Amino acid sequence: MAQRVVVIGGGGGGLGAAGGAKAIDPTADVRVYTEFEDVAYSPCGIPFVHGKEIPTFESLFLAEKQAYVDAGIEVHYETRVNSIDRANKTISVEGEGVVPYDSLVISTGFIYQDPGVPGAHLDGLYYVKNIRAAMEWDKRLDTVKKAVVVEAGPLGIEMVTALAHRGIETHVIDPHPWALGELLDPDLAQIVQDSWTELGVTMHWNTELVAFLDNGNGSVGGVSTSGGTIDCDLVVVATHKRANNSLAVAGGIAIGTTGGVVVNENMKTSDPSIWACGDVCEIPHGSASLPLQGLTGSHAYAQGKVAGYNAAGGSRAYSSVYVPWGMVAGKWMIGGAAFGEVAATALGMPYVLGVADGISRARYYPGVKKVRVKLLAEPGTLRLIGAQIIGGEGVKERADFMGLAVKMGLTLHDLANMENVYSPPIGALNEPIKVAATNGIAAAGKS
Amino acid sequence: MAQRVVVIGGGGGGLGAAGGAKAIDPTADVRVYTEFEDVAYSPCGIPFVHGKEIPTFESLFLAEKQAYVDAGIEVHYETRVNSIDRANKTISVEGEGVVPYDSLVISTGFIYQDPGVPGAHLDGLYYVKNIRAAMEWDKRLDTVKKAVVVEAGPLGIEMVTALAHRGIETHVIDPHPWALGELLDPDLAQIVQDSWTELGVTMHWNTELVAFLDNGNGSVGGVSTSGGTIDCDLVVVATHKRANNSLAVAGGIAIGTTGGVVVNENMKTSDPSIWACGDVCEIPHGSASLPLQGLTGSHAYAQGKVAGYNAAGGSRAYSSVYVPWGMVAGKWMIGGAAFGEVAATALGMPYVLGVADGISRARYYPGVKKVRVKLLAEPGTLRLIGAQIIGGEGVKERADFMGLAVKMGLTLHDLANMENVYSPPIGALNEPIKVAATNGIAAAGKS
Repeated sequence: MAQRVVVIGGGGGGLGAAGGAKAIDPTADVRVYTEFEDVAYSPCGIPFVHGKEIPTFESLFLAEKQAYVDAGIEVHYETRVNSIDRANKTISVEGEGVVPYDSLVISTGFIYQDPGVPGAHLDGLYYVKNIRAAMEWDKRLDTVKKAVVVEAGPLGIEMVTALAHRGIETHVIDPHPWALGELLDPDLAQIVQDSWTELGVTMHWNTELVAFLDNGNGSVGGVSTSGGTIDCDLVVVATHKRANNSLAVAGGIAIGTTGGVVVNENMKTSDPSIWACGDVCEIPHGSASLPLQGLTGSHAYAQGKVAGYNAAGGSRAYSSVYVPWGMVAGKWMIGGAAFGEVAATALGMPYVLGVADGISRARYYPGVKKVRVKLLAEPGTLRLIGAQIIGGEGVKERADFMGLAVKMGLTLHDLANMENVYSPPIGALNEPIKVAATNGIAAAGKS
Repeated sequence: MAQRVVVIGGGGGGLGAAGGAKAIDPTADVRVYTEFEDVAYSPCGIPFVHGKEIPTFESLFLAEKQAYVDAGIEVHYETRVNSIDRANKTISVEGEGVVPYDSLVISTGFIYQDPGVPGAHLDGLYYVKNIRAAMEWDKRLDTVKKAVVVEAGPLGIEMVTALAHRGIETHVIDPHPWALGELLDPDLAQIVQDSWTELGVTMHWNTELVAFLDNGNGSVGGVSTSGGTIDCDLVVVATHKRANNSLAVAGGIAIGTTGGVVVNENMKTSDPSIWACGDVCEIPHGSASLPLQGLTGSHAYAQGKVAGYNAAGGSRAYSSVYVPWGMVAGKWMIGGAAFGEVAATALGMPYVLGVADGISRARYYPGVKKVRVKLLAEPGTLRLIGAQIIGGEGVKERADFMGLAVKMGLTLHDLANMENVYSPPIGALNEPIKVAATNGIAAAGKS
């Protein structure tokens, strides 16, 4: 009889796991349970539909439901899993009863951290996540005059930019002293914030949320903060993404310091029949003894493929992560890999710094844009620790490159001696990565 | 008394050398001789002014002449060097007589290969090189109805695209079976050629130039080719760039198989007081026992800095090259590093191939463009041999990355396990380099 692989969660991790299981065992009985109406859409696209950069929500769907039927993957929509019984290798499913599994993959994703302040029951608090809800919220945005975004993390940054693009008076409050305060260095954050000022955004840094305020009709009418009250018609609550671990916790599966499910390099949990992937689990960082939780859809999908493949009898490893990242912020692209100055300082890692202000094309070529590269390297060896980049184009490709460079142990000398493409419409005489590395070597020599 | 460093040539290599000499010895008497009216402009920008992408020639100038005076570099404009007397360490300069040197840097650049056919004396044959001449030719282009570009090498590709953008009926003839026939793989060339067809360009492959034809008034009126006659008002002669080695040859300096001056890793020639850099010299390729001549302005400048630094008493090495390259061709960007299939086959290098057809952003994000990546790797080890890329954006940054990846000995496994940025406006879920590497590993497993 075919083995049964049950996947809880229909996001990038869960669908990756279902596909991974089918890849090694096409005869496996693969079932995916999701609480939502849909699978296989791109939630990452939602802020850009709100910002009118993408014309419709429909374009965010990646595949028709029939595609999963055709692939032999049985998706149970709008179906809640209530508990896991590890001793009997079953799950309890609302409306279906007890369902046995041979292998289980937990991919229950994230929940937004509870802001823990009064007023959380009010209407008008928008937690960006589900596409059907986003479609309804999008209609409501047409009537919104003034909005507050709570926290300028990755989603908050995209939502601030989207609301401002849409012409809504936008405020952002955040307890950190600058945008993306745990990741992004302040010199780069300042450039982003300047472009938000141009867009008419009002920023409130070092500011704690105290309460959501009632407008008298059960809807939000403002927020009370450590810096005073801000009136508004809508609040986007973009607090930290935490592991949605309640099923795993109740099932007695080991949980790490971040709240994420602990997995080994095969994405297996503390239970030998249970795997996990995506935002619900934590992953070791390649450069430090530091578990990370809440990475990107690309990470979730890649972890899912490994988890599902192994759950169906295979043996594949998922590497430690160095986390190249990137996004649009205001009129800029920002990105990097591993550690910038803020994170390295927080971790107590000494570093040598190399910085370059370069350009994306020949100086005289129309459309040329600024590109600033910062490289951090280990003193002495000058091995790359991380990079941060801001610019008008080519940031994602440079961040990918720097992520692998950190992983492979490249040094500032390797990067200073790199060759680069020079062609006026697409590349400047000197690649900013190369110049930053050269400047870093010079700085190391002086220190 | 200050040492005298004489540089022959005012292009990227020569100016790099002058700066390199001043960097190590600010007191050095550094002189640059150039036959032209200007230094420090970007000849690489000329095709894009012709194509109206760049509005003026003036913008191509990088620095005012005063900047070199201020830097203590004495530039002798419109001054020809007639010979080198190595025994006496002097050069003979037209109008100045005998000029002694302590160290000499030869950076005399390239000349176009003589097409070796009748009619080479005719008016209307345009060899793209000097900016003052380009300004005159640009006025003439306003009256040109029909042009022929001889050879679809790097410059030919840019000029075909420029003339077509300008609305001139453009033909290209080339002895190879496709564009950039010694470098670019035919599957990528076909995509470029399709976009040229859309622009109205007529291509004549496997076609030899036989003669330039007189219109009866001493100007070119057409070309005779192995495939017939083509009428035209103008011919852009974009034959191979050869080392402009006549001074070096007459001076008895060792010349290599490409016609380029032979240099060691310090850019020193066979004469211990003479260095060379840029298109006049040849450089070993990092992956094969193959000397290369005629690289980019970026290479010339980097070589110049090393040559000048060493000529003034320093000791720096210039690494072997892996030659990341890139350019705009029709509506595409093309690029790569080290060897594609055509070059690997010509060199008798066996290879495993991994190909991916990816995208530059999320599938649904406006402005998303196709990106095709081909990776070649050594059978067995799967060490990267080279890459070729065509796409709408991010090609230059990927080519830089792949150039260093070849140099550092990265394998398809390293690239298949890379992480990548995922953010809808700037990067797709799966980086095409990663997918191509994964496909290459699969292909290697089957062979």
